[in-house]
Amino acid sequence: MPISTELTALLGIRHPILLAPMDTISGSRLVRAVSEAGGFGILGAGYGERTRLETETAKLEGFTKPFGIGFITWSLAKRPELLGIALAARPRAVMLSFGDPAPFAPDIKAADALLICQVQSEEMARQALDCGADILIAQGTEAGGHGASRTTIDIVPAIIDFAAGRVPVVAAGGIADGRGLAAMMMLGASGVLMGTRFYACVEADGAEEAKQRIRAAKSGETVRGVVFDWSRKLMWPSPFTVRSLVNDHFRHWSGREIELMQRADQIAVEYAEAKAAGNFEVAAVFAGESVGLIHDIPPAAEIVGRIVAEAEQSLQGRRNSIAFVG
Amino acid sequence: MPISTELTALLGIRHPILLAPMDTISGSRLVRAVSEAGGFGILGAGYGERTRLETETAKLEGFTKPFGIGFITWSLAKRPELLGIALAARPRAVMLSFGDPAPFAPDIKAADALLICQVQSEEMARQALDCGADILIAQGTEAGGHGASRTTIDIVPAIIDFAAGRVPVVAAGGIADGRGLAAMMMLGASGVLMGTRFYACVEADGAEEAKQRIRAAKSGETVRGVVFDWSRKLMWPSPFTVRSLVNDHFRHWSGREIELMQRADQIAVEYAEAKAAGNFEVAAVFAGESVGLIHDIPPAAEIVGRIVAEAEQSLQGRRNSIAFVG
Ligand SMILES: Cc1cc2nc3c(=O)[nH]c(=O)nc-3n(C[C@H](O)[C@H](O)[C@H](O)COP(=O)(O)O)c2cc1C
Ligand SMILES: Cc1cc2nc3c(=O)[nH]c(=O)nc-3n(C[C@H](O)[C@H](O)[C@H](O)COP(=O)(O)O)c2cc1C
Repeated sequence: MPISTELTALLGIRHPILLAPMDTISGSRLVRAVSEAGGFGILGAGYGERTRLETETAKLEGFTKPFGIGFITWSLAKRPELLGIALAARPRAVMLSFGDPAPFAPDIKAADALLICQVQSEEMARQALDCGADILIAQGTEAGGHGASRTTIDIVPAIIDFAAGRVPVVAAGGIADGRGLAAMMMLGASGVLMGTRFYACVEADGAEEAKQRIRAAKSGETVRGVVFDWSRKLMWPSPFTVRSLVNDHFRHWSGREIELMQRADQIAVEYAEAKAAGNFEVAAVFAGESVGLIHDIPPAAEIVGRIVAEAEQSLQGRRNSIAFVG
Repeated sequence: MPISTELTALLGIRHPILLAPMDTISGSRLVRAVSEAGGFGILGAGYGERTRLETETAKLEGFTKPFGIGFITWSLAKRPELLGIALAARPRAVMLSFGDPAPFAPDIKAADALLICQVQSEEMARQALDCGADILIAQGTEAGGHGASRTTIDIVPAIIDFAAGRVPVVAAGGIADGRGLAAMMMLGASGVLMGTRFYACVEADGAEEAKQRIRAAKSGETVRGVVFDWSRKLMWPSPFTVRSLVNDHFRHWSGREIELMQRADQIAVEYAEAKAAGNFEVAAVFAGESVGLIHDIPPAAEIVGRIVAEAEQSLQGRRNSIAFVG
């Protein structure tokens, strides 16, 4: 008994589960796996490396399931020509996060793709709706990777109330199991977007060691801040910070951000070396608060199947101690 | 069609909604109103003013609905004799938050009252279960008043998994409507504990101006920190900080906590004066992230009724766009 929502109808998918366009983690392999499983895979275009985008979209040629491509908006604004490459791959939707979607909305619409915007406030939701967003993703601070400060159970109902039924709203941040999907549907969301859960999965383009660290991490072992961005000399616009597993590098530099900035040139070199060497006590593993719910590294199809089964059970009241007494 | 859970059975109540023991806000009047409405009122014993506790428990004499009394544990540890006064009022449960419940558990059990412990981590849950807690409250950082850093959708499943069915787990932090109750039940909670929503209610013992500020505040206008504690020379143990509406005083002192501490004597005097004068641009209104969901100041019974009706609707899938297709 699948869970059908406005979202599944609009995207033409079977399950209301979206793969987040995690920069270099959500490659064509993971996109295919999630979409094959009945969810909606979204390819990460990341900071916009042209060659990778061309390679990964080429691998999606002839793929018949619906999928999307996601950009970091402020980064796309520096290389707007990449949008054309993405649209040529005929995605069902383009997802824009972190920046003003207005300059890109017309081309996306003209290509007959849906526009998905990830937002962290009512003001950003207004911007997105004004330029014709078809789907809003309300992202809470629990999310892995970049995001802002309001929590998922605050921002999701807030954006749902703001959207007032005009478009479906998807919940993101801290969701990794069927309980989470069911809970978000109770808040009025039409589905969920998950990053961290799909990182710890066979088809993700991430280092095995990073996946193992996500699997092993306990709830409460992630942190949000600017340390890992500044260590890469990556200056994100306000209000965005990045959530990752806590490690030695973070512990050392947290609270010393000014010194970090002053020594940025040197630290960036060291950081890049550590990253290349796969040293994750220096390099970041971007991951969200849901790490505590993640205990394995299965194929994407198993994740989708499990979440859907658990959510259906919860939504039918069979799980836990809830009973309805007439 | 009431929502029955393990929690409603254990406490002998009709609806799985608990009133948080907000220090001087949750007085006997509000406790009566919530318990009369079928929820579970918990009297706030706050920092342990003996006279107030005696007066308020006296007003509960002869009250036949189940109710509880809640202590700030580290504060009770300084005046342990207050527990006897509370137990003499024959509460169905004593709630302990923020500190080690072990020294008080035996007396509570001996008086045939249930022990409710509010926790912010698995380690605190372990402490609580070890000394015989009957109900755990998993409190997320969204909560008004004191709390820690993990969010509600992180801490609630974490504590549920930790408790593994031994005791019912109640969700607290950021819940103010029926969507929130339904969502928490999907996560596996047996009910919710609400503070902020009941603050903005007719029977709460709070200043009218404070209630109006909660009603008017938008989502995202609360902050967590130590400014308001230090301004009262109140040194809370780690990891607890306090969430309140943002105001001029907070904006001024946030980021200048060291100077605040250095000038604590003078500031405490000014702060107390402002509080006495009802100046809420200096004095804090303790409130949680759910302020964005609160738009009125109704009687407690209306709040309970509304939340239950909305949750029932959500749980039955009638609300929003969810449809189950066979
Ligand atoms: C490793 C990682 C990389 C991410 N990179 C991006 C990105 O490039 N673009 C983007 O829009 N979101 C990115 N995100 C955020 C996701 O869009 C999404 O909001 C988040 O993963 C949801 O929270 P969750 O991780 O708790 O599932 C990333 C998240 C992670 C975990
Ligand atoms: C004004 C106010 C005062 C509070 N005082 C106490 C207290 O004295 N003891 C306690 O255990 N919790 C106290 N809390 C926290 C509550 O127990 C509860 O965790 C919180 O209100 C739940 O989150 P919510 O405010 O979003 O409903 C207080 C909360 C508020 C809003």
